[in-house]
Amino acid sequence: MEVTIVGAGLVGCLLACFLARRGHHVTLYERRPDPREQGPDRGRSINLAMSERGIDALRRLGLDGKVLDAALPMAGRVMHAQDGALTFQPYSADRTQAINSIGRAALNRELLDVASALPGVEVRFGHRLTGLDERTGRLEFEHGEVADGARVVIGADGAFSAVRARLQQLPGVSFSQDYLDYGYKELSIPAKDGEFALDPGALHIWPRGRSMMIALPNRDRSFTCTLFWPHETLAALDTPQRISAYFGEHYSDAVELMPGLAADFRANPVGHLVTMRCSPWHVTTEAATVGLVGDAAHAIVPFYGQGANCGFEDCVELDRCLDETGDDFPAALELFERRRADTDVIARLALDNFVEMRDRVGSRVFLAGKRVEHTLERALPGYVSRYELVSFSTTPYSQAERRIARQRRAVAAAAAGAALLALGFAARHGRRGRRSGRPGHENGR
Amino acid sequence: MEVTIVGAGLVGCLLACFLARRGHHVTLYERRPDPREQGPDRGRSINLAMSERGIDALRRLGLDGKVLDAALPMAGRVMHAQDGALTFQPYSADRTQAINSIGRAALNRELLDVASALPGVEVRFGHRLTGLDERTGRLEFEHGEVADGARVVIGADGAFSAVRARLQQLPGVSFSQDYLDYGYKELSIPAKDGEFALDPGALHIWPRGRSMMIALPNRDRSFTCTLFWPHETLAALDTPQRISAYFGEHYSDAVELMPGLAADFRANPVGHLVTMRCSPWHVTTEAATVGLVGDAAHAIVPFYGQGANCGFEDCVELDRCLDETGDDFPAALELFERRRADTDVIARLALDNFVEMRDRVGSRVFLAGKRVEHTLERALPGYVSRYELVSFSTTPYSQAERRIARQRRAVAAAAAGAALLALGFAARHGRRGRRSGRPGHENGR
Repeated sequence: MEVTIVGAGLVGCLLACFLARRGHHVTLYERRPDPREQGPDRGRSINLAMSERGIDALRRLGLDGKVLDAALPMAGRVMHAQDGALTFQPYSADRTQAINSIGRAALNRELLDVASALPGVEVRFGHRLTGLDERTGRLEFEHGEVADGARVVIGADGAFSAVRARLQQLPGVSFSQDYLDYGYKELSIPAKDGEFALDPGALHIWPRGRSMMIALPNRDRSFTCTLFWPHETLAALDTPQRISAYFGEHYSDAVELMPGLAADFRANPVGHLVTMRCSPWHVTTEAATVGLVGDAAHAIVPFYGQGANCGFEDCVELDRCLDETGDDFPAALELFERRRADTDVIARLALDNFVEMRDRVGSRVFLAGKRVEHTLERALPGYVSRYELVSFSTTPYSQAERRIARQRRAVAAAAAGAALLALGFAARHGRRGRRSGRPGHENGR
Repeated sequence: MEVTIVGAGLVGCLLACFLARRGHHVTLYERRPDPREQGPDRGRSINLAMSERGIDALRRLGLDGKVLDAALPMAGRVMHAQDGALTFQPYSADRTQAINSIGRAALNRELLDVASALPGVEVRFGHRLTGLDERTGRLEFEHGEVADGARVVIGADGAFSAVRARLQQLPGVSFSQDYLDYGYKELSIPAKDGEFALDPGALHIWPRGRSMMIALPNRDRSFTCTLFWPHETLAALDTPQRISAYFGEHYSDAVELMPGLAADFRANPVGHLVTMRCSPWHVTTEAATVGLVGDAAHAIVPFYGQGANCGFEDCVELDRCLDETGDDFPAALELFERRRADTDVIARLALDNFVEMRDRVGSRVFLAGKRVEHTLERALPGYVSRYELVSFSTTPYSQAERRIARQRRAVAAAAAGAALLALGFAARHGRRGRRSGRPGHENGR
């Protein structure tokens, strides 16, 4: 089958690999020039945290080893309090599991190399999609180029997908874009005397109530920091003096590690945080089937570290749908719609996790709760935290949520049982007390 | 001030009247040709039900009398059961209030006449907006025409607004379009022997559980019927035989009044039912302010009969915002954003009312509930039903909802009080009974 994929980012390249393995011919159209011939985009989501769902997808293609070799494992979070105090929270109860800091640009180049080396895969850079007619399978690109009669078109072209822009115009296609009132901006903590300036085995978080900063390690021993701040705070720091003063007050242990702070802050762009939903993800006409995967189908905010992982898992799921339908793309894309139950869950969890990261993660109550959770995990047979189910398993997101709900009911029942036992003990104790003191009032109210 | 309004439908024309009264110069761009020079669109939302919010807006411009003269008042609903039995439900407890069936095309022509006769208002038909640059105030139209340097642009161009399409592309503008799985199709019940074939003083409903038909009277003594059906039902009736058989079974008392049924069913298009939300509704740059009103800002489904009423009320509210800001459009449009609290409420009520109309409206429990509600209205001082607050007052939608919530708490408290009294009575009664029968068990469990 001839398949057109729009977008040669992480998900588009990976999907091309899966489809080529099935014997399909894939043409990938990418609006940007070949990233292997130039440097990466500066200041826009440079790192990602690869965890089990992404690794599982890579493993199915034999690509996990090479990718993980280039990654830095992070086994937990290091919280930086305003007074500089540090707290380590392992991601798993047994402290053995880690998420993996990976440079997006390097991973994309790697996947481009792999995909374009496969027989039947062709990548065309500098092709920005400007028009798509699902009734004819006609694709139009900037500068007038045209591809006619595509039978299968898959949009893997990200949160601002041009393929989805066409689907959105069709009656019956529901869609939403929800922006947070927060922006993000990337900064850097360079290597210090040739070494990492912070522990490279953790994801660093500076939770500050309504805002936060995080830092992920890079292979060159620098850290990429990302601010998640209200837009008005980002806009308010408009002089080097204000920038230094603000960081000195709120990120005092980091500011001394950031010699380029003021210049980076002023030079780097502000990114937006958006959740995109679309339903259905595909349309089939007599001439063509057009579908969406990855961020094009369901862009989520980055606070669970699942954007790329979820997009990679899309490829595994679509591959499974093609198995189930004997490579009938319209039927497979119809089946693939069931995945929305899972992507809706991770979209919500990612939003919820922002509140947890920026706010609760630094609080004593939260830390005590985490200790209770890890105690429970060791005490209750089979108990697994939500974070572990999301990050260290391939249990579908919606199933993970159902399991968390069951576990919470079990814990609540156990707690209620314990409370009843305690009350029973207190009542017997109290009754005995009253008995001895006030005989004859056994039936008292 | 020079103001550009995109869209010369009901809301665009009414807003032009309000702005012209304030002394502004208004240019209205309308993509269609002048409707006064040709017939109306066939088969697309021909009637609307004008109620107090819309009438109040017209009254402020002295237009209510003429518009209502052309309308047919509907004082309640007539429910058509499957066996042909009819039930009348008045819209207000005192049976004096009515909503008004008005032809959309005639009202639009009327408002176009009024607006274009005002000094400072110019209407340009055949101008379809194809581009808008909020940074320069440049407007581009189909066939290459351009308007440069507009300072204030207001999109009143409906649910599929071209102005909003531009705003949606800006980072930070949240948006959603939610389609129901239902379509609508218009049919007709012509006059019978020169007279209305049904009671013209009511809105007629054929509730059928998962679907329904409604009918509104027209001045020519016909009724316009609208089916609200699942898309698959609409698609399934693909032969005259199937159409007749289906209507014969489900709408037996109507089918004999619809001689053109099969032809109309096959000729008329299927409309879609969509709820649109957008936030913010306006963007201000150094060069221009671009805002939205009416369906362009908040398209809602038609089941509360509030789409046009809400759009007309937008004009009143924007006029009030201009009062409050001394005709500073950027400030007024910023203030106008507060109206989202109200439009979000009516959007939800309109969706909820679909379930009520198609399903509960025909049930005995619902009818009994309505009787209780009307009894309460007469019994409790100041009690007003939600329908009356929405349709027969200009209480902001969100305030109406808060009042309904307060009333429900009051009724629940009264009911609980009555229940306690009854229980108290029963307990005294029971205790006496037990006393006489089982003396000495006063402290029994």
